[in-house]
Amino acid sequence: MTVTAPNGFRAAGVAAGLKSGGAADVALVVNDGPATAAAGVFTANRVQAAPVRWSRQVLRAGKLRAVALNSGGANACTGPGGFQDSHATAEHVAATLSGTGLDVGAGEVAVCSTGLIGERLPMDRLLAGVTAAVARLADDAGPAAAGAIMTTDTRPKTTVVDAGPAGTGGPAWQVGGMAKGAGMLAPSMATMLCVLTTDALADPADLDAALREACRTTFDRIDSDGCLSTNDTVLLLASGASGVTPSAGELTAAVTAACADLARQLIADAEGASKEVAIEVVGAASESDAVQVGRAVARNNLVKTALFGNDPNWGRILAAVGTTSAVFEPDQLDVAINDVWICRDGAAAAPRDQVDLTGRQVHIRIDLHAGAATATIWTNDLSHAYVHENSAYST
Amino acid sequence: MTVTAPNGFRAAGVAAGLKSGGAADVALVVNDGPATAAAGVFTANRVQAAPVRWSRQVLRAGKLRAVALNSGGANACTGPGGFQDSHATAEHVAATLSGTGLDVGAGEVAVCSTGLIGERLPMDRLLAGVTAAVARLADDAGPAAAGAIMTTDTRPKTTVVDAGPAGTGGPAWQVGGMAKGAGMLAPSMATMLCVLTTDALADPADLDAALREACRTTFDRIDSDGCLSTNDTVLLLASGASGVTPSAGELTAAVTAACADLARQLIADAEGASKEVAIEVVGAASESDAVQVGRAVARNNLVKTALFGNDPNWGRILAAVGTTSAVFEPDQLDVAINDVWICRDGAAAAPRDQVDLTGRQVHIRIDLHAGAATATIWTNDLSHAYVHENSAYST
Repeated sequence: MTVTAPNGFRAAGVAAGLKSGGAADVALVVNDGPATAAAGVFTANRVQAAPVRWSRQVLRAGKLRAVALNSGGANACTGPGGFQDSHATAEHVAATLSGTGLDVGAGEVAVCSTGLIGERLPMDRLLAGVTAAVARLADDAGPAAAGAIMTTDTRPKTTVVDAGPAGTGGPAWQVGGMAKGAGMLAPSMATMLCVLTTDALADPADLDAALREACRTTFDRIDSDGCLSTNDTVLLLASGASGVTPSAGELTAAVTAACADLARQLIADAEGASKEVAIEVVGAASESDAVQVGRAVARNNLVKTALFGNDPNWGRILAAVGTTSAVFEPDQLDVAINDVWICRDGAAAAPRDQVDLTGRQVHIRIDLHAGAATATIWTNDLSHAYVHENSAYST
Repeated sequence: MTVTAPNGFRAAGVAAGLKSGGAADVALVVNDGPATAAAGVFTANRVQAAPVRWSRQVLRAGKLRAVALNSGGANACTGPGGFQDSHATAEHVAATLSGTGLDVGAGEVAVCSTGLIGERLPMDRLLAGVTAAVARLADDAGPAAAGAIMTTDTRPKTTVVDAGPAGTGGPAWQVGGMAKGAGMLAPSMATMLCVLTTDALADPADLDAALREACRTTFDRIDSDGCLSTNDTVLLLASGASGVTPSAGELTAAVTAACADLARQLIADAEGASKEVAIEVVGAASESDAVQVGRAVARNNLVKTALFGNDPNWGRILAAVGTTSAVFEPDQLDVAINDVWICRDGAAAAPRDQVDLTGRQVHIRIDLHAGAATATIWTNDLSHAYVHENSAYST
């Protein structure tokens, strides 16, 4: 049910002809309230797509009634005309929704786009798609919306988190979510397109705090290919339809659970991935040290190709750790791959052939012996399929 | 003639059985003087191979009589025993050379190693190889030495720079050089293994200054795969045999020319490369901004796979530029690929199909419109062959 699992939300997904092939490419999520509080987190890339600039501006008021999303074109690097296109999309959503009896202004409509950078969107098709989506809005159409935002994703990513004390009639409140993203996945503040919904009651500041903390330890810790997108957007909309006002801690926990679930689904479906790799850094002097080390290993092409080749090449892992400014001594580094401590004190330990890398899940543990902090970065391997997909597909 | 082109140098390259297959794997370069001044630049990786730590220590005195190099093993991440192996190698070189009538101490012998990280060297074979190399030292054996340091290199990299006023009998003095390196090529202070020789007269401080300046604009500006090695070493030995004392500017120019020649050869032979890519950043507010932008583009896997696929994907280039802290406005960025200005003012300009990417040489020009500084980073594409080579070969 994804974004339509929590009460107070409707959604739709339709095919508007933005993608060749006729697949669904326009999604709409509408918050029917009673509340309309919202928060957003966006890409740290300084080259920002038009819909990112539009949505960032809209979010300043802390309210969203709707989100319009399209695949089939990123509307990034499209100049002033591209920004006008995002604005026009929001205006059309607002006008069409108002035609159904809702009172919605363009300033309450966020826009998200994904696809090829550098080309203008075919606005006639997009606006017709929005009209069709409004007509199909339904409180069980979350899966259709999740499907319409896919690009090279092989499957939709959705989540539902039940929160609050369990009563006889189901959870007190919920967080639902959908996401897309299969390449250009190295979020910094956000990742790809993700819409989260909740029927909890919360003000915009609480939503913002919960969303930032959730992103910090989930989307910000996945790194598929080191490439930061121009379009990354994570939105959180609260309808308040449950009537429940969770504590800040409860809200953060539920949103984090939803983000963590979606983040793992993104890495699992990353372009060309044959391995899902968790890089757990322990014994760090600080959490930021642990993140820095994990990310350096996650971005190292020689580590990633070795994993693709089922080669437990701990030397390449140490070479990657050595590029960081984290606190450690080279002769105190330990590395385990799939629970085999193949490197101790910066030198060979258990024999390489004790490491079984034939499975899809890989767990690398790096002990810096410099403190008590820890962090895990999730990544994948670098495969022939990644090269094939990204040399043949323009995004 | 490479390292034996300048007067005062002998070299050798022999097969000692470190590599399976019987290829040459031990090289020796000897400076017969009369001078023995030397300088070295080493990897910025904090995980440093034993030979790097040995050679760095030796270079403190600013003198080298010999350099022993081996392929077939990096002697990195090998613990205290690995350092003793590098020390023992230098001792054996010194003792064996002393047996031929030269007066050489181990503290005048640098050691370089390349190959798999994390395994101890077979010292019996290596020392026997050194003995054999001393017996074969010759003033025309530079090519044999250059061949013996290859790993995944498909061809040796050598250079000779004629310097000084041309007389009737040839150049006044020369710089010769050899290098190896085909992967883990993202030097920071140095690159892979490189030995430069000159028959100029210069003191260690002048050599050091010339070598650091030369590396800064050559080896430090190539970036094959973003991966910084544990073993990068560039050494410069001066015999003074020409009797010529060049100015600091002349020395720097000749050493820079030699390094630039070798750096381009390294990129041209990078693992799996099908393109040689020059990323020229112009209009930068500072040289460091230009380098930062060039390197961000050079390390972007989505740019690199697009180039492999002959796709002039300027959107990915802008996305990479956007990750930097350089001074620029996103709506003022211009990008040309092979002289076609495919992006102007941060948006599409010339049609993609005007760009011809079928050749091996690719020139990307990025104008930041923020100043007058410029820099060029050399890189290559990311191909199936790179993935194949690095998933199947342990280095």
